[in-house]
Amino acid sequence: MAKVSEGAIPVMEVWRGGLLECVHQAHAVICDAKGVVAAWGNPQAVIFPRSSAKMLQALPLLETGAADALGLSQAHLALSCASHEGAALHVGMAARWIADLGLTESDLRCGAHEPGDRTERDRLIRAGERPCQLHNNCSGKHSGFLTVTRHLKAGPEYVDIDHPLQKAVRAATEEVTGETIAGWGVDGCSAPNFAMTVGGLARAMAQYATAREGYGARESAMHRLTRAMAAHPDLVAGEGRACTELMRAMGGRVAIKTGAEGVFVAILPEKGLGIALKIVDGGTRGAEAAITALLARVGALDPAHPAAVKRMAGVQRNWRGLETGFYRMADGFPG
Amino acid sequence: MAKVSEGAIPVMEVWRGGLLECVHQAHAVICDAKGVVAAWGNPQAVIFPRSSAKMLQALPLLETGAADALGLSQAHLALSCASHEGAALHVGMAARWIADLGLTESDLRCGAHEPGDRTERDRLIRAGERPCQLHNNCSGKHSGFLTVTRHLKAGPEYVDIDHPLQKAVRAATEEVTGETIAGWGVDGCSAPNFAMTVGGLARAMAQYATAREGYGARESAMHRLTRAMAAHPDLVAGEGRACTELMRAMGGRVAIKTGAEGVFVAILPEKGLGIALKIVDGGTRGAEAAITALLARVGALDPAHPAAVKRMAGVQRNWRGLETGFYRMADGFPG
Repeated sequence: MAKVSEGAIPVMEVWRGGLLECVHQAHAVICDAKGVVAAWGNPQAVIFPRSSAKMLQALPLLETGAADALGLSQAHLALSCASHEGAALHVGMAARWIADLGLTESDLRCGAHEPGDRTERDRLIRAGERPCQLHNNCSGKHSGFLTVTRHLKAGPEYVDIDHPLQKAVRAATEEVTGETIAGWGVDGCSAPNFAMTVGGLARAMAQYATAREGYGARESAMHRLTRAMAAHPDLVAGEGRACTELMRAMGGRVAIKTGAEGVFVAILPEKGLGIALKIVDGGTRGAEAAITALLARVGALDPAHPAAVKRMAGVQRNWRGLETGFYRMADGFPG
Repeated sequence: MAKVSEGAIPVMEVWRGGLLECVHQAHAVICDAKGVVAAWGNPQAVIFPRSSAKMLQALPLLETGAADALGLSQAHLALSCASHEGAALHVGMAARWIADLGLTESDLRCGAHEPGDRTERDRLIRAGERPCQLHNNCSGKHSGFLTVTRHLKAGPEYVDIDHPLQKAVRAATEEVTGETIAGWGVDGCSAPNFAMTVGGLARAMAQYATAREGYGARESAMHRLTRAMAAHPDLVAGEGRACTELMRAMGGRVAIKTGAEGVFVAILPEKGLGIALKIVDGGTRGAEAAITALLARVGALDPAHPAAVKRMAGVQRNWRGLETGFYRMADGFPG
């Protein structure tokens, strides 16, 4: 295991006026069921997966039987893995879910923040309302957490590190990554986030990619969560967001998920591949560009698709629409 | 001269749960009137100063006599160097300035964007109004540009690279940095932005720091702009912003200015020093932390001041106020 800064390589460049203005460095790994297929930077670099771990955090929802006991739909499973924009679609669905549990918004432990969705944000401002916990981008994950908690008849403080739910998440994380966790931290939404290597995260994604139905609770859960995400790009993020636009561009065949501070993962069932990457400085544009380039490299995404060009090689424009520069991948990445 | 990525060093770290989560790399230079006093990374790295060049772009406003012909106050000079929040204070002042010129908002060439100031943003949304060019964070600089343009009886397209105003900015930039420009690009506000080395930018800031009144138009202009910025921290940025909070913490003795994509500069008249730095990945938090650390190192800023702690060594909290980690400077920076 290595510090996040050790052995990173330049992956993405920002150009202006014919000059290089910024560079993002990263670690990236592609795995299949057997192990590492390709790597850039240091696969042993320890990272927090942040929200890219949502499909790991959702495993107990299925494995305990809580999801089926409540009759959750595929859309609910997608929302449980989402970092959503807090649009009316997301907030309404989370609100109904919490109500179906016989609980209220105050039972959530994710905290409140202004939604990314402009329409819902402007509606709140015009109505003089404050955002609530349902607007938190993690409210779907936390609705899933509450579903498990009620099913297990466990205590209400479900984000405590010693809560049975978080113990189950930790155990599942170690099993799927094939690693003992490297530590843990508190995430933006107050849930524990378990540290792992970039290689371990890619290995976990490869397990999802190769999971089959009818081969036990673990494989079945991974299979269902992957299909749910790929089938509902609008629920996993929102309009204009990379996860939503790139999953749409790939026609529901691939599940991808971003995480705060420059993390991105992808699950490619048809190819049996998992991808994980971390931008060392935490830059979102670098992570979006790098996952786009890797998806194109493995043949899952058309690099000429507008959603791909915009993030990997797009012309940048200013407030008056004037061209100011462009993005490009650094020499040698992904090769 | 070197590419921005060559020879950068780690300066700022983001920690979570006892583990390093992100690292920002940078170049930083401190100069006095004679040259480089201290440097980290590569002083020859070529950068776009972006909005940290606003005091260079404001030189023709004073040197042509345009400012005094219109009777501009010290506050106007501060606003001409601002990247402001588009609060009512800033928008109102720019609106009156443009009206005093006998011009209208449509004569600006900066483009419109939503203001950073929450009160003004919410007011616009409630009123169903769209932001105008006066809300652009650069509307003060552009008001200054229009003032020079009218004074010179030059054409209305004042952001064109061949416009007399931009030729004057370029000449002043080369003289004050002591360098031929390394190129130019179009900035977010559509004005040309001239590329230079980090060392050249620091040298320019040292010229401002040591400029005297009554020693010619250039020194007088640099002296007045520095005092205007230091005396009006609220106009240069806005509530909650690093420039405003740190200048207030230094009691009007120092002028500092941020620029997009991780640039920060400082002018320290009492010490005769100029500082310039660039975060290679463009990260704002890294630039704010690094300038804070350098201002503390040269004895201009109390590192225990809340505005300093928040940016250089602050505990980070999530939406529920829980502690998630902290910021710290990397080993060896600034030493």
